[in-house]
Formats: sequence, C-alpha cells, structure tokens
Amino acid sequence: MIVATPSIDFGEVVHVRPAAAGSKVLVVCEHASNRVPTGMRDLGLSGEALQSHAAWDPGALGVAEAMADQMSAALVQGGVSRLVYDCNRPPEAPSAMPARVEKYGIPANEALSAEMRRERVMQVYEQFAAALARQIKDARAELKLMVTIHSFNPTFHGKVRGVEVGILHGKDNRFASAMMEKVPGDFPFVARLNEPYSAADGVAYTLDLHGVANGLLNVMIEIRNDLIRSTEQQKEVASKLVPWITGALAEFESGKAP
Amino acid sequence: MIVATPSIDFGEVVHVRPAAAGSKVLVVCEHASNRVPTGMRDLGLSGEALQSHAAWDPGALGVAEAMADQMSAALVQGGVSRLVYDCNRPPEAPSAMPARVEKYGIPANEALSAEMRRERVMQVYEQFAAALARQIKDARAELKLMVTIHSFNPTFHGKVRGVEVGILHGKDNRFASAMMEKVPGDFPFVARLNEPYSAADGVAYTLDLHGVANGLLNVMIEIRNDLIRSTEQQKEVASKLVPWITGALAEFESGKAP
Repeated sequence: MIVATPSIDFGEVVHVRPAAAGSKVLVVCEHASNRVPTGMRDLGLSGEALQSHAAWDPGALGVAEAMADQMSAALVQGGVSRLVYDCNRPPEAPSAMPARVEKYGIPANEALSAEMRRERVMQVYEQFAAALARQIKDARAELKLMVTIHSFNPTFHGKVRGVEVGILHGKDNRFASAMMEKVPGDFPFVARLNEPYSAADGVAYTLDLHGVANGLLNVMIEIRNDLIRSTEQQKEVASKLVPWITGALAEFESGKAP
Repeated sequence: MIVATPSIDFGEVVHVRPAAAGSKVLVVCEHASNRVPTGMRDLGLSGEALQSHAAWDPGALGVAEAMADQMSAALVQGGVSRLVYDCNRPPEAPSAMPARVEKYGIPANEALSAEMRRERVMQVYEQFAAALARQIKDARAELKLMVTIHSFNPTFHGKVRGVEVGILHGKDNRFASAMMEKVPGDFPFVARLNEPYSAADGVAYTLDLHGVANGLLNVMIEIRNDLIRSTEQQKEVASKLVPWITGALAEFESGKAP
C-alpha cells in the first residue's frame, strides 16, 4: 500500500505570456497575485492582510503587463500569494513560507509540517522555477535581458520612503549600473540604486538563479506602490521605464557598455 | 562586473561505491560522517557534540558497508555532518540546517544568511541527491529495493529505549510490513515498526523522494547505537539484517508479497 498524501489543488501557480519571436527582453513578476488556493482558508488572514504588501506586490502586475506590451516581451508571473510560497526565495529560506511578515502573523504558516512545506515547494516553487527556466531556454537565442518587477510600501516604520523607483542588482551589477548612469532627463520619479532593499535582504534570488546563471543581463525594479494604484498610473510608469531600459540595453548592444 | 561569492571547499560530500552488475539492492547511509568542512570552524561545536548523535549516526556506516558487502549491493553515503546539511531533509525543513539538536545549540547555524543556506543546499544537498538519483538511474533495470541505514541513541530524556532495531516506512509501507511479518526466529534484537521515529518526524524524505518516486521497494532501518560500537558488532548486526532483508525481498520476487 502506498499511502496517499492529502493535498489541495493549487490552481494556476504560474502564468506565462509568450512574446513575439525575437524578443530580447523577459519580464518577470513573482509577486503578481494575492490568491490563496481554495482549501487553505485564506491562511487564517484578514482581508486587510491579504490585500496588503505582505501578501503580494500591489500594482506590480499592471506595470509588468504594460511593459511587456510596450516591449513585445514575454511575461512570467506568479499565480499565488507570496505567503503561500514566495517565488523570489529558495526553499531553504525561512521567508519562503514566512510565519510573520511586517505587522501580520500568518496563522497557517506557524506550524507547517514537513509534508506541507514539501507540497508547497513542489506545487508552487518548483512549478514556477521550471516554467521560468523553460521560457528562458526557449527564448535564449534572442534573449538579452531579464527584468523583474516589484512594488514596495510608501512608508516603513511610520516614515515615508523618499525613493520612488529602486533599481536593484544581485551578483551581476552591470545592467543596474548602466541604468543608473543614464537616468533619462524626463524621468519623473526619484530613482535610487539598491533601495529600498538590496541583495543583502535576499531579494536577488530570481536574478541570480535565472538571470546570472543563464548569462542574461538582469535587473530588479521596485516601484513605490502608491504610484501605481490605477491602471492608468501603471501604464504611465511602464511608459517611463521602457525607454530607460531599452536605452540601457542599446548601450550593451552597441558595445558602449561593458 | 559579476560579484563573486566567498565560498569554502566542501570536500567529498557524497561517496558512491558501485555494486557488481545486477545488484537488486541499494544501501544508503545519509548520516555516515561527522566531518565539518575546513573553514567552518567545527560549526562552533565541542568535540563531544561532534562525536555525538547530533552530528551523525555513530556506527551506521560500518553496518551499511558490511550489508553492502554481504549483499554485493551499491552503497551511497553522505560525506559531511548532518549539522552542515542533513541529507535526509528537504531544503525547506528547518531541521536541514538546524540551530539546535538535542541538547546542543549549533552556533554556526543560528544566524545563517540566505547566501550561506543556498551554498550548503547547492554544495551538499543537491550533490548528494544528484549522486543518489544517478546511481538509481544507472542501476534501475536490476534494482528492486533501497535500504537506508541509521542509528539512534539508547536513551531519550533519561529513559532507556526498549527498541533495538526500528523498521520504518514512508508513503510505501510494503517492504517494512513484509519484514515485520517475517522476523527471523533467531533475530537477536527487539525489532519494532516505526520506532523510535516515524515518517511523522520527517525522517522518510530519502525513502519517498528516491524510493517511492522511482518505484523501488524501500525501508529505513534504525539501529540502537550502543549495539554497533565496534566493527565486529557492526558486521554482526549486518549479518543478522541481511538474511531478513533478502528473505523479505524473495517474498516479493516469488509473488507471495503484494
């Protein structure tokens, strides 16, 4: 007898929107969704917690979609809340299935059994990582750059954050540096390098695992979420980021950047 | 510029001793070694802690080697202390790189960075898992059974444990059940099912991942470590286990067991 494991249907944990052939850019949005699979009882959380930055990156998907549209780029997006599994974290990170995020305790994550951890790793993390790896492999011949899109809260411990757009890098700082050297004159937001987070906060996992390891230029963009509340705002921010990114990419393609 | 990660040499994290062609049995000993790689400063532990069951399964390797010899079976053994990485645990398990085991705090594991966790996962866990998977794949045509060998402390919270040999299963209980139904009349030890641990303690990871998933019969054998202190004792215990195991396997091959 092989004992069956009770398990739930995780639904669509990753969604891939392919690009037209020849796209040089791949957009990734790990924290696109705050969906908790049916049967997980909302992880024991309030609606307020599930709508907050603890559960996902509000507004990030709209920006990522608009950027992918404007660049004819492929888009890989997560399909469940990062509180179920944070696809920008490796399985061994306590923050991959956190028991506490910001001011919220996550009741369902406080006493996860080995079996429950394993199920989430297999059903969410491994599916997401495999889909992203496959997308990169399929597009590799033309692909040059991976951009991951995130959003952050405007306040931290009661203080307003001055940074509006963060340009972050992992082990490979080339693209982030190239962007910071050529901020467009009309870019309307305060942009800073490695703010409000940096690789030391463990946020560069996707960049290093899928970008650096595949020889892709890569960068993570963090947008203050009060700037991307509406679809119009999301499209507007995307339309400011795209020429900046394509301009920096052109520097590499022309051989001006190292 | 791609920023290099400071890293250490983990040495031989897994050792594979192949079998003669046609071997039906694979022996695995995850906790064979208490070696801590040079540069990790003994994880901040005393020699006493590093010699204890917290760091490895004392005596288990000697039994596993003798069993492999007597059955002409292949042997896959871990090459570092389970306190560096416990190869019978998945990366997401807190016990994979534990901060505390039994009475010992593990200083070097108390504040592991994301990067340090990742390095151990890649350098130890993934190497061990890959070597074991490769061995199974290479031998799959003839292979029928995977046996993992462990040892446990004679006392627990000051009380002597009555069980001397534990027969444990994960999701597939067939082989463990078959063994418990046919304990040899001259088996000189107290044998019990799922003692002193069971799958609920998270110990069935190797069984389920490499055994069940590959369609192999599988069983985990736990031996009280006071019974396997000397090489002679280890060989003696092996010589009692081997006919029990081969007898149970014959039941499956003859079609008597399900």
